Amino acid sequence: MKNKCCNCLGIDLGGTKIQAGVVDCNAGVVARGRVKTRGIEGSSAVVGRVIEVARSAVEQAGMLMSDIKAVGIGAPGPVDHRTGRVVRAPNLGWRDFPLAQTIEDALGLRVVIDNDVNVGTWGEYKMGAARGFDDCVGVFVGTGIGAGFVINGQLFRGHFLTAGEIGHTTIHADAHLGRRTLENTASRVAIANLLAQLARSGHETVLTEIAEGDIGAIRSKTIAKAFAMNDPLTIGVVNKAAYYIGVAIANVVTLMSLPCVVVGGGLVTAMGGVFVDEIRRAFNANVFPSELQSCQIVGSTLGDDAGIIGAALLVSG
Amino acid sequence: MKNKCCNCLGIDLGGTKIQAGVVDCNAGVVARGRVKTRGIEGSSAVVGRVIEVARSAVEQAGMLMSDIKAVGIGAPGPVDHRTGRVVRAPNLGWRDFPLAQTIEDALGLRVVIDNDVNVGTWGEYKMGAARGFDDCVGVFVGTGIGAGFVINGQLFRGHFLTAGEIGHTTIHADAHLGRRTLENTASRVAIANLLAQLARSGHETVLTEIAEGDIGAIRSKTIAKAFAMNDPLTIGVVNKAAYYIGVAIANVVTLMSLPCVVVGGGLVTAMGGVFVDEIRRAFNANVFPSELQSCQIVGSTLGDDAGIIGAALLVSG
Repeated sequence: MKNKCCNCLGIDLGGTKIQAGVVDCNAGVVARGRVKTRGIEGSSAVVGRVIEVARSAVEQAGMLMSDIKAVGIGAPGPVDHRTGRVVRAPNLGWRDFPLAQTIEDALGLRVVIDNDVNVGTWGEYKMGAARGFDDCVGVFVGTGIGAGFVINGQLFRGHFLTAGEIGHTTIHADAHLGRRTLENTASRVAIANLLAQLARSGHETVLTEIAEGDIGAIRSKTIAKAFAMNDPLTIGVVNKAAYYIGVAIANVVTLMSLPCVVVGGGLVTAMGGVFVDEIRRAFNANVFPSELQSCQIVGSTLGDDAGIIGAALLVSG
Repeated sequence: MKNKCCNCLGIDLGGTKIQAGVVDCNAGVVARGRVKTRGIEGSSAVVGRVIEVARSAVEQAGMLMSDIKAVGIGAPGPVDHRTGRVVRAPNLGWRDFPLAQTIEDALGLRVVIDNDVNVGTWGEYKMGAARGFDDCVGVFVGTGIGAGFVINGQLFRGHFLTAGEIGHTTIHADAHLGRRTLENTASRVAIANLLAQLARSGHETVLTEIAEGDIGAIRSKTIAKAFAMNDPLTIGVVNKAAYYIGVAIANVVTLMSLPCVVVGGGLVTAMGGVFVDEIRRAFNANVFPSELQSCQIVGSTLGDDAGIIGAALLVSG
C-alpha cells in the first residue's frame, strides 16, 4: 500500500441498507454514504442506489471518481467472486445477477464482489481483531448468523461458494423430534421472538416499557438496554443464546483447529464485551482437545464498518 | 509415478494393531504384515514392532529394503508432519515422540508421518472414493469417530494440528443439562454399550445369542450380523447412530461447502452400504443450503487398507 492513489470504495449491500465508504491507504473511512435498499423495487432501482451512494461518498470525500482505484462490494447470498455474479439473493430477488459488471459499466472502475459475511471477515482479518493470524473465522450475529473463513491467508468459500453457514448448523438434534439450528435459537430475531413471547405470556420484564410499544420487533439496542438494566428475563435469554453460539463456535474450532474467532454483527456490537465473555465461557467448556482453549475469541474491532472496510480491502491490497 | 522404483512402505500404527504394506506404483498392496501394538510395553518395544512388521512386509514382497523408495506412517493423536514428531498419543503413552527420525535411523529410508485419520483420508482422496475431487472430508467410524480434510488438494491440519475432531463436536446441546458429542452417541463403542445395556435390562435381541457370551464387548461384525438378521433392537440403535452421524456431517458440509464426504472405518466396513444410505438420508435432511445435497456421500473403497495405502501415498506422489 505504498501507492498514494490507493483510495478505494467499499460498499456493503445489505437487505435493509446500502452503505458506502471511501477507504484510504490506512483502512480509514474518510467519507460515507448510506441509503435504504428497498429491494422490492427491483434490481435496476437497487443498482441505481448503489451508484448514487457511491458517488455521494466520493463527493463527500472531496474527490472525483478518477481518484478512486477500485471498488469492492459485499453482497448477500452466495457470490461468485470469479465471475462477479451474485448467485442468489432472495432478499433482493436476484438470481445469477452480474453485479460487478453492472457497477463497473456505471462507474468506470474495476469492481470486485464477494459475500457480505466473507467481506466482514476479510476486514477483521486484514485490519481488525484477527490481524496477524493466518487462519480465522468471523461469526456475525444479527438478523441471522453467518460465518466467513480465512484459511492460509485467503478467503475460503468452498466448492459450492456457500461456506460459513454456521447459523444453519444443528446444535440440538433429536432423531425423533427433529432439530434446532443455531440461527433459530440464538439470532437476534430468535432472541427477540422468545422475549416477546415470554413478555406476552405474563413474565415480568422491563422490555414491556422500553420496547417502544412494539414488543413484536425488539431491536439489538433494546435487548442490550434491558440487559444493562439487569432485567432477569433478558439476562437469562441472552446468556442462553450466548451459550449456544459458544457451542457452535466450539464445533467449528474442534473441526478446523483455528487460532482465532472474531465475533461481530449487530447484536454483538450492541451488547459488547459481556456477550463475548459469555460466548468464550461456553466455547472453553465445549472445545476439544483442551489446547484449543488458547484459540482467541475476540470481539470485532471494526464494528459496523467491517463491511465497507473489508470490501475496500478486497481491492486495495 | 513414472518412476519404476516407486514401491513404498505404508504403515498404519494403531492403538490395537500395526499394519504395514508394500504399495506399488498403482497403489496396489503387493505384500502385508501385521502385529499387535501392545503400547503398554513402552515406546522402544512399539518401535521395534514397527520395524519388524515393515521388514516382514518387504520380505514377503520378495524385495530388499533398498527396493523401497520411502516410508509413510499414520500415527494416532496430533502429529507434526513437519518435524516428524507425534505430539501426543495417549494410547501409546507418547508425548513429543520423534517417530520419523527413529524409523529413518532404523531402516535407512526417508520417513514421513501424519495423523492416522488424515492418512486414511489422503488414501481415499488420491486413490479411493474421493478421487477426482479438489476438497473432501473423510469420516471414520470405529472405536471413536474422527475426520480428515483435504482442501485445495492438500491435507488441512489446522493451526494446532488437531483438525477433524468431528467425534467431539456437540450434536445435542442443552444450556442446563450439558451436551452429547457425536462420539459418545454414535461410535461403535457407544452403540455396543447401549445395546448391551438394553439387552441386560431385558430387551429381546439376537445379540444375547450371537455376541459369543460377551455382551459387554460387542464388535462391529456382531452388530452388522444382528442388523442383517433384522434384529429390531439393533436396527433401531444403529439407525439412530447413522442419523446423528448424518447430522454431524451435514454440519461440516454446511460450514465448509465440500463436494465429497467419504465414510469409512471399522463399523462402516462391517455394516456396508445400508449404513451409508442411512447417513446420507440424515445428511440430506439437515444440510443447508439445498444445493449441498449434491455433495457426494460415499462409502470408503479402500476399506481397511485406507491407512497403509494413504501412508504410502504420502511419500510416493
